Amino acid sequence: MHYGNGMITRCRDVLESEFQYCSDLNTTRFLKRMLEVEKPDFIAFTGDNIFGPSTTDAAESLFEAFGPAMESGLPWAAILGNHDQESTMNREELMSFISLMDYSVSQVNPSAEDLSSPVKGGMVTNIDGFGNYNLRVYGAPGSHLANSSILDLFFLDSGDREVIQGVRTYGWIKESQLSWLRSIYHESQVQKQNSDQSADTFPTATSPALAFFHIPIPEIRHLYHNKIVGEFQEAVACSSVNSGVLQTFVSIGDVQAVFMGHDHKNDFCGNLDGIWFCYGGGFGYHGYGKAGWPRRARVIIAELGKGDKSWMGVKRIKTWKRLDDEKLSKIDEQVLWVHQPS
Amino acid sequence: MHYGNGMITRCRDVLESEFQYCSDLNTTRFLKRMLEVEKPDFIAFTGDNIFGPSTTDAAESLFEAFGPAMESGLPWAAILGNHDQESTMNREELMSFISLMDYSVSQVNPSAEDLSSPVKGGMVTNIDGFGNYNLRVYGAPGSHLANSSILDLFFLDSGDREVIQGVRTYGWIKESQLSWLRSIYHESQVQKQNSDQSADTFPTATSPALAFFHIPIPEIRHLYHNKIVGEFQEAVACSSVNSGVLQTFVSIGDVQAVFMGHDHKNDFCGNLDGIWFCYGGGFGYHGYGKAGWPRRARVIIAELGKGDKSWMGVKRIKTWKRLDDEKLSKIDEQVLWVHQPS
Repeated sequence: MHYGNGMITRCRDVLESEFQYCSDLNTTRFLKRMLEVEKPDFIAFTGDNIFGPSTTDAAESLFEAFGPAMESGLPWAAILGNHDQESTMNREELMSFISLMDYSVSQVNPSAEDLSSPVKGGMVTNIDGFGNYNLRVYGAPGSHLANSSILDLFFLDSGDREVIQGVRTYGWIKESQLSWLRSIYHESQVQKQNSDQSADTFPTATSPALAFFHIPIPEIRHLYHNKIVGEFQEAVACSSVNSGVLQTFVSIGDVQAVFMGHDHKNDFCGNLDGIWFCYGGGFGYHGYGKAGWPRRARVIIAELGKGDKSWMGVKRIKTWKRLDDEKLSKIDEQVLWVHQPS
Repeated sequence: MHYGNGMITRCRDVLESEFQYCSDLNTTRFLKRMLEVEKPDFIAFTGDNIFGPSTTDAAESLFEAFGPAMESGLPWAAILGNHDQESTMNREELMSFISLMDYSVSQVNPSAEDLSSPVKGGMVTNIDGFGNYNLRVYGAPGSHLANSSILDLFFLDSGDREVIQGVRTYGWIKESQLSWLRSIYHESQVQKQNSDQSADTFPTATSPALAFFHIPIPEIRHLYHNKIVGEFQEAVACSSVNSGVLQTFVSIGDVQAVFMGHDHKNDFCGNLDGIWFCYGGGFGYHGYGKAGWPRRARVIIAELGKGDKSWMGVKRIKTWKRLDDEKLSKIDEQVLWVHQPS
């Protein structure tokens, strides 16, 4: 959202005819419009929620930026980008503040309790960054999956900036964070082995997971030569460090799609080793963009299977985007994952 | 200057590499650099000093915008553009405030006393706008011109917006203002006739005058096909009304050069009926501009003639611009007026 100080924070990269009345309030309006048209169940914010250099008071800007989310009464979650901490709060303070906002289900980091795992050696006691957490979507109330996670949402802090051998680069997801991901995976494997698996359910082993972080991984660059859905209009601004995020996702196997922020003029989904990586596309009006190329937002839908007696697990995950034009045009609809009966 | 809220107000139309650390503070820095390099005797601000829509408190923004001028201790004068009043102060309040700032020699409007003229019918009792005034530069102390105006500076309020037959257009200089100009002219003519004219001076009848206002007059458009010094890079954003400013200047005869603001990507001087019309070129970083085309400022020098015994009147008026690049490059130097001995 790149939120600044609201009405006095002007839009970047809009048409000259749009500039005069364009401010952060356009970002607020777009968020409200998206909530009205899509009536979602959950909202995920992928970082650079506020743009520090244009903000005099981070808390105030966070209230304004997440205002429509809080007013909606929907659960919502956010992670940090590379600009959020550039004003009056550091990253720990920001995530703590965000985790306490109305209807926010964001967390600063996994608590020690969450991290206790029956798998020895998989326990993570210290984790890099702020805003690493796992949200579980449970099955339909009354169904046999009412107490099982049918969709995992992983939020990861990809950091802001780092200096590697004297050279400035973007942050990346550290080994401690990947280790935490693996520990969750091991834990869920153990739980699955211990749980009753009846024949008429989608095996919980195939419950999909989605991941959200701000800064793209270096492999996204390879997608320039691949078939993608959407537009690849700027260089991937990733870290010079490859910490093995893709390999970790591949080895875990649950993560079917990853959603990133950071690059405003890229809004594509591309597939790497069977996992979809999707940009949201620039949303906020004070963030850089491309005049005449409307601000946009990504929608994700996880559809439940319908059994004979009750709702089942997730059977399909789709995505599309909407443009902040007059009709909130829906574009680039695609299927990201389909449940394969075993 | 298009000043907003200072550090949190971001630059428009700069290179992506410049954007990160670019704010209103760059405008402040440019003003300070100009004062250091040119060491001027006077500073004139030609409107849109602050950009209302990016300002939460007009008074605060005025203090920041004119800060380097006030700190310099130099006399300075400002008029209003079309954006100054778009926040917390109306045009009358703005000019009143500006007139009271440290070292400001700006005036809201001519006082009743100034307007009393021996020429019947030339007296103006009511004048449109706020910021119409005449500053007189007197001859060198100790010279025979110590008590005579050797250079007149006319500041005029060209307004903001008007609606003509339902169509929105820019403001213009009204007949009441032109009538005031004519009355000053008549008054000075009478004074000259009454004064002692010794042979070894430049006759005061040829004392040049300069005029400053924000919105260009419609005739500036004709200069597109004429020889100009500088660049004509955007349509002249003037009023649809031609109130006869050029004719008035021609008939008065004293005004040798006119300095305008408003169009940031035009920085040329062009000649209309013997009078030079010069844009300053965009100065402020929050004003629109052209990325890679440096912000710039116009310098005007009025050189005094050197007589046998003492300083004389103005013998030549020159102008140039400086770019806000590393070397403050000096460009487009030209002569605007030379005293012709009678």
